[in-house]
Amino acid sequence: MVDIFDRIKQNPGPLGQFANYAEGYFIFPRLEGPIGPRMRFQGREVIFWSANDYLGLCNHPEVLEADAKAAAEYGMFYPMGARAMSGETDQHLQLEKELAEFVQKESAYLLNFGYQGMVSTIDALLSRHDVVVYDADSHACIVDGVRLHMGKSFTFKHNDIASLEKNLERATKVAEEQGGGVLVITEGVFGMRGQQGKLKEICELKSKYSFRLLVDDAHGFGTLGKTGAGAGEEQGCQDQIDVYFSTFAKSMAGFGAFIAGNKDVVRFLKFNLRSQIFAKSLTMPMVVGGLKRLELLRTRPEIKEKLWENVRKLQSGLLERGFNLGETNTCVTPVMMQGSPVEATLLVKDLRENFGIFTSVVVYPVIPKGMILLRLIPTASHTDAEINETLAAFEAIHGKLVGGHYKEQAEKFLEENNLSFKPL
Amino acid sequence: MVDIFDRIKQNPGPLGQFANYAEGYFIFPRLEGPIGPRMRFQGREVIFWSANDYLGLCNHPEVLEADAKAAAEYGMFYPMGARAMSGETDQHLQLEKELAEFVQKESAYLLNFGYQGMVSTIDALLSRHDVVVYDADSHACIVDGVRLHMGKSFTFKHNDIASLEKNLERATKVAEEQGGGVLVITEGVFGMRGQQGKLKEICELKSKYSFRLLVDDAHGFGTLGKTGAGAGEEQGCQDQIDVYFSTFAKSMAGFGAFIAGNKDVVRFLKFNLRSQIFAKSLTMPMVVGGLKRLELLRTRPEIKEKLWENVRKLQSGLLERGFNLGETNTCVTPVMMQGSPVEATLLVKDLRENFGIFTSVVVYPVIPKGMILLRLIPTASHTDAEINETLAAFEAIHGKLVGGHYKEQAEKFLEENNLSFKPL
Repeated sequence: MVDIFDRIKQNPGPLGQFANYAEGYFIFPRLEGPIGPRMRFQGREVIFWSANDYLGLCNHPEVLEADAKAAAEYGMFYPMGARAMSGETDQHLQLEKELAEFVQKESAYLLNFGYQGMVSTIDALLSRHDVVVYDADSHACIVDGVRLHMGKSFTFKHNDIASLEKNLERATKVAEEQGGGVLVITEGVFGMRGQQGKLKEICELKSKYSFRLLVDDAHGFGTLGKTGAGAGEEQGCQDQIDVYFSTFAKSMAGFGAFIAGNKDVVRFLKFNLRSQIFAKSLTMPMVVGGLKRLELLRTRPEIKEKLWENVRKLQSGLLERGFNLGETNTCVTPVMMQGSPVEATLLVKDLRENFGIFTSVVVYPVIPKGMILLRLIPTASHTDAEINETLAAFEAIHGKLVGGHYKEQAEKFLEENNLSFKPL
Repeated sequence: MVDIFDRIKQNPGPLGQFANYAEGYFIFPRLEGPIGPRMRFQGREVIFWSANDYLGLCNHPEVLEADAKAAAEYGMFYPMGARAMSGETDQHLQLEKELAEFVQKESAYLLNFGYQGMVSTIDALLSRHDVVVYDADSHACIVDGVRLHMGKSFTFKHNDIASLEKNLERATKVAEEQGGGVLVITEGVFGMRGQQGKLKEICELKSKYSFRLLVDDAHGFGTLGKTGAGAGEEQGCQDQIDVYFSTFAKSMAGFGAFIAGNKDVVRFLKFNLRSQIFAKSLTMPMVVGGLKRLELLRTRPEIKEKLWENVRKLQSGLLERGFNLGETNTCVTPVMMQGSPVEATLLVKDLRENFGIFTSVVVYPVIPKGMILLRLIPTASHTDAEINETLAAFEAIHGKLVGGHYKEQAEKFLEENNLSFKPL
């Protein structure tokens, strides 16, 4: 028999193994000052590329005013308990109405937090006879939702329609045997590598297979589509998405989330989402503040235009300088590289300390083993000067990367410190 | 093969079956006005007993000021992303330090939401070789956490130490076979029926069995123990709780949560909680506002004294009037009755409309089938007048209940509407 705490000490987990070396710098860094394109990190100003605040609303004066006014009026506790017990207000219903209209669905329901909201949505939709087919690169909240499923589930290769079709065939067979249905889950935008989910092609498979489609459009909502309704609108298949999900933690510059769909399914979810029935309603300042943010999304298309102007400048500048941005077709700007984790960290350190550029570095388990990904999130708030300074810095480090500068340093570092890392 | 949406239409779920009849009144009621002992429901003033705001901090002027000031300075988005990516601040670390001290643990870690925080805590602590033993009445978030566990789990009868011991024997055997460990999970206070978990007796079993203990003290934190450190302090075994969990949605009058324990385990959890690594950090206004709330918990013992004065007045008054409060030994005041769901709802309606008393009515699946529970949460803000008015109302309905008034009405109602309800 084992003591759980002893095991924990011996096996700190995939991120924990780097804790002593990475904490406070690569993981759990502390940024200071108002959120925006320039923040402070360890005493120096950096150009900051890690806020998912696409539209720059987080410190928009009208948003800050709405948040502050609502917090002064309601405090952070209002409304009291779970939505079902004492947590429903006119403002919650109003925001749901406006969100439904915005994403072109009949009905919407607010979620107190996106992660658990998605977990419970998957859980509530499925019986044990149903079969799930989901993209292998799905976000952790989708994975955890599927983990709760007692029945069969299959992954399809990331954004690979042939693989989806193969798995739909298997799923259909199992569902037929068990008297269940099929639920396909994917994302509107994959937040790490920036590809849109192939929603249009997935929806076309509905003529061949019987399934319902749940889409997590966290990064698409507000950034894609003519009106900002997301990846489905962008691809002309929004009406084929059966359950639409988005968080408020990106374009809406907040927290919480919502689901949208036809009246019946949303009403069913309202009565059956465990994390909503048994936990506190979304706090009022975020609901009142959410109404203001949504108003800006609707009425200020120039903000989204500015975002895309910045996206184009940043991405074309990086491509011109020889960087590999993978298959991004969204605002998410992943700079993909290969090398050891130590090389990756030396590169990031160089960028931060010698060039004043702060990007997130993403490693396993967020992305597959063996990849290094610097992720830049351009926002509507970034200026040309900030973009140009960043491009110049990347140009400089590209030479170092190609020249083996970091590789040499990494070997030296490992030798000097008598270290060896498990390959990522 | 089945269409998932068709099934949903046909089977609306345990709460959904009452939707048409209960929505807006018994479930999803809309309360209006500032939170407090008197709010408005459907146009009339009611004495409100359904806010878990034990200490009345939600509209304490210093709390409202702290919330408003933080929202004005930071907005609702700050800090930007997940704790690990860009969501760590000095204030988060400060609140963790103070929370750890307050609950007498080495270390604490904030959670962006309690429900998913608990789910991920259970998930992170366990390997598939481990065995879970948990109280059968555990909150939904504990149940969902255990549902993620790939290995064995056993429930023990609610607060029944003999049953726990029997299951610990089984668990120990399985854990020994598999080379795993044992995790016991219970609550400091069971939020529906108000009993404290028998923590002292559970901890005493540590001399006989090898296990780690995780306690959800949502309703104990701030209300129990000499310093408000919760059910473990109250029972003199706080140091034996290995992982302590509490939400901010009760005494802290907010949202979010934290875990506390020894340095090693908290550090492990910081690096391994999926819902924290992959989702947004707790919003700054709740962190800054949390520091203010905790300061009040520490420095104003008179608030907790006032709460308990009100608890004693309400509970002794109800007991004197012949009501069954079950085994509560906390602030939670459950008035337990038996009868059909229709009787329960007629009773609640009578209380609300003819006496202006608003309580939550709890039915299956929150509590076991066949029970009706009116739950009153006294707070430090309730006045003697409000308590006395409530006691008078309960005295009046008690006679009606005993006299069969609601039973007759219920039968009439069912007959007139040609209805029949599945027994709860």
